[in-house]
Amino acid sequence: MQIILLSGGSGTRLWPLSNDARSKQFLRLLDVEGTDIRESMVQRVMRQIREIGIDADVTVATSVSQQDSVIAQLGEGVSIVTEPSRRDTFPAICLACEYLAKEKQCAEDEIVVVMPCDPYTETGYFGCIKRMVQSIADGCADMMVMGICPTYPSEKYGYVVPEKEYTDEVIAVKRFTEKPDVQTAEKLIADGALWNGGVFAFRLRYLTAISDKYVSAKSFTEVRDRYDEFPKISFDYEVAEKATSIGMVKFLGKWKDLGTWNTLTDELHCKKYGNVLTDDTCENTHIFNELGIPLLCLGTKDLVIAASPDGIFVSEKSKSENIKGYAAALKNRPMYEERRWGKYKIVDSVCFPDGSQSLTKHVSLDPDCSISYHRHDYHDEVWTIIDGEGEIVIDGVRRKIKRGDTVEIPKGFKHGVHALTSLSFIEVQTGTKLSEEDIYRFSYD
Amino acid sequence: MQIILLSGGSGTRLWPLSNDARSKQFLRLLDVEGTDIRESMVQRVMRQIREIGIDADVTVATSVSQQDSVIAQLGEGVSIVTEPSRRDTFPAICLACEYLAKEKQCAEDEIVVVMPCDPYTETGYFGCIKRMVQSIADGCADMMVMGICPTYPSEKYGYVVPEKEYTDEVIAVKRFTEKPDVQTAEKLIADGALWNGGVFAFRLRYLTAISDKYVSAKSFTEVRDRYDEFPKISFDYEVAEKATSIGMVKFLGKWKDLGTWNTLTDELHCKKYGNVLTDDTCENTHIFNELGIPLLCLGTKDLVIAASPDGIFVSEKSKSENIKGYAAALKNRPMYEERRWGKYKIVDSVCFPDGSQSLTKHVSLDPDCSISYHRHDYHDEVWTIIDGEGEIVIDGVRRKIKRGDTVEIPKGFKHGVHALTSLSFIEVQTGTKLSEEDIYRFSYD
Repeated sequence: MQIILLSGGSGTRLWPLSNDARSKQFLRLLDVEGTDIRESMVQRVMRQIREIGIDADVTVATSVSQQDSVIAQLGEGVSIVTEPSRRDTFPAICLACEYLAKEKQCAEDEIVVVMPCDPYTETGYFGCIKRMVQSIADGCADMMVMGICPTYPSEKYGYVVPEKEYTDEVIAVKRFTEKPDVQTAEKLIADGALWNGGVFAFRLRYLTAISDKYVSAKSFTEVRDRYDEFPKISFDYEVAEKATSIGMVKFLGKWKDLGTWNTLTDELHCKKYGNVLTDDTCENTHIFNELGIPLLCLGTKDLVIAASPDGIFVSEKSKSENIKGYAAALKNRPMYEERRWGKYKIVDSVCFPDGSQSLTKHVSLDPDCSISYHRHDYHDEVWTIIDGEGEIVIDGVRRKIKRGDTVEIPKGFKHGVHALTSLSFIEVQTGTKLSEEDIYRFSYD
Repeated sequence: MQIILLSGGSGTRLWPLSNDARSKQFLRLLDVEGTDIRESMVQRVMRQIREIGIDADVTVATSVSQQDSVIAQLGEGVSIVTEPSRRDTFPAICLACEYLAKEKQCAEDEIVVVMPCDPYTETGYFGCIKRMVQSIADGCADMMVMGICPTYPSEKYGYVVPEKEYTDEVIAVKRFTEKPDVQTAEKLIADGALWNGGVFAFRLRYLTAISDKYVSAKSFTEVRDRYDEFPKISFDYEVAEKATSIGMVKFLGKWKDLGTWNTLTDELHCKKYGNVLTDDTCENTHIFNELGIPLLCLGTKDLVIAASPDGIFVSEKSKSENIKGYAAALKNRPMYEERRWGKYKIVDSVCFPDGSQSLTKHVSLDPDCSISYHRHDYHDEVWTIIDGEGEIVIDGVRRKIKRGDTVEIPKGFKHGVHALTSLSFIEVQTGTKLSEEDIYRFSYD
């Protein structure tokens, strides 16, 4: 059995804690019951999959910008398939299935479960997935979908309209309805429709046959190279709605989309994260401070306050959904990123009147991790090592570095670094084009 | 005529915009009517003194930590007397008067006006000062005090109780009452008492005679060296209350102490300072953002929000006075300072588990300004020049520096820098004791 976790999202709705590299599913805010540990949504889902004993390989379908976060949070135990460009869920799922079929050499009758990486739910959800898989194994239908019990007539979700019950557990699906208005939603719910939770099960060949119609290729590499030939369409429209044999399993337990500040904070018992002081008169105020400086809050009510290297957000909770209207205005390069080798934050950034720029980063590498050999064409870098030891290679010359050392890397010079211990340095970039795109990677000669 | 402006304050009540180096009087938040310019309280008072045409030399009595802010904001046109240690207003005024007498060689019958540097008031206030000076010149009394028309029975202020009217303008003072309770304040006001605005006029010899009783010295340097021999007592207790011949001039115009977030924001028409976005549903919310990152605020009511390199403050306006209870918890080295040569901000600061530390500063020098020759014993520095040109001297060796250059300054090495243009650099300190006290100044050999 194979599980494909869909990890997408633009990272604007939980700004400034989320950004393009750190979507909401990567925020380590959720308490692991009975421990002091906090985990992210994607970590929670992976833990739940393992805890219920689903024996499946997990492949994460994601974007290039989220790849390092996935590795940092889930480790090496999962496969990752990255989309060459952002399209929609249908192409993303095709690509992941082609990976399973052509790269991983999975059998064509192997059962595949596609699911979002960030549902906030309980164990029963995963039991429900087991029943979906069993239904496919039993030949009940070509495809199974999970129906979520609606709690209100939402306009945000798709609905699955049932036809008749096959068995106690499996219900035939009559049709799907995407994002209806409230009145239609009310009627749908009255008629027994459920929310479409985006969880599907099918045999691998079922999907590769559909994928093949758009991109018929010999290798996974070829499919990936021809990714733009897939239509920009959702899996629901292209596959689920067209399916002729589709069954549903109902999930009646707790399920939430923690996609807004309001829904997220509802689930967080802790109200203060980071360096935060409040007085006794603060009520229903959740505060997240990822900056190194103190945050003092007096007498506020019903607020969410979040501060990160990307920005500061202060909102009445019920108004916090309006943040989406400001996404474009707040669009910037991420000021904080988790990477496979560690993390960095931008601590200073200036544009001078003559067009030149400077950018200062605090970079932290984990022990025994490396930043690969690369070059920049538009900026010089100076690193001052502030902690730890490592090895740096500049244009083929290798040397040890340690706390207090300075490294000058003029533009055009290839360089890479390996951390022997935890290694931290301050990197000052100066140049005319300080963008993340100014990077050209090499292998060591 | 001589004016002594008293510039003190601990900088906690308008945290995080104010800090030990930047007390409230230095915050550039006040609109200059009819212009786009913003000025600080101390700049406003200086401008008002000049505009009304008071022909006086101005001496600012302040602490060492505020000296650079005074120079940066008022320029070279004022004299500055710094207290060697923090005592109270009586020693501070004695020191300034001894400076006028012994260093500046003012005549002993010259009239001196002592006043706070930060009253938020109108032109009439300065006309009132002129009348106080005239009254001293006319021999009405040994000392004149300004009485401010009370607007409510405050417990925060001192009161001046009148006796009888000498002339239309000058009233004999019966006694002073410091910070009464509300009931007493109500009675005082009913009996015609006024607030003591802390403005006094007298002839220089009047004060030096009192000062002499504590520290009788030949030179100003000697007075300064023996500063701790002055009692820690306020001018009101030691001088005003003991005066036998003291008159009052009434000021009936607008006068406010903008000492809390609540009173300050009442006077600020502009509600957004810095990189701030709000939606239409924000009401009565003042936002100050001195960080380089955006601040988005949605649907808040009656809040003050302030963010600076020192910290972030979010408060219901009526609760904002409670900030004083948190001063100790928020006490830290200033993360931002205006200096006579420019300014700096701390952009990153880390303590590592083994006790070593790093601190990263963005330093900006104004053209033709210098940081004097000095040495640190407990930390190394690396500077990366990000803009401009200058000259640096390291252990006697002078060299030019410009954008892109790197300068290493190991501990124990004397160094100084002169800016030929605007000069900015990122300074990374690493060491075991990163405090502002680790500095030893020299003159160039």
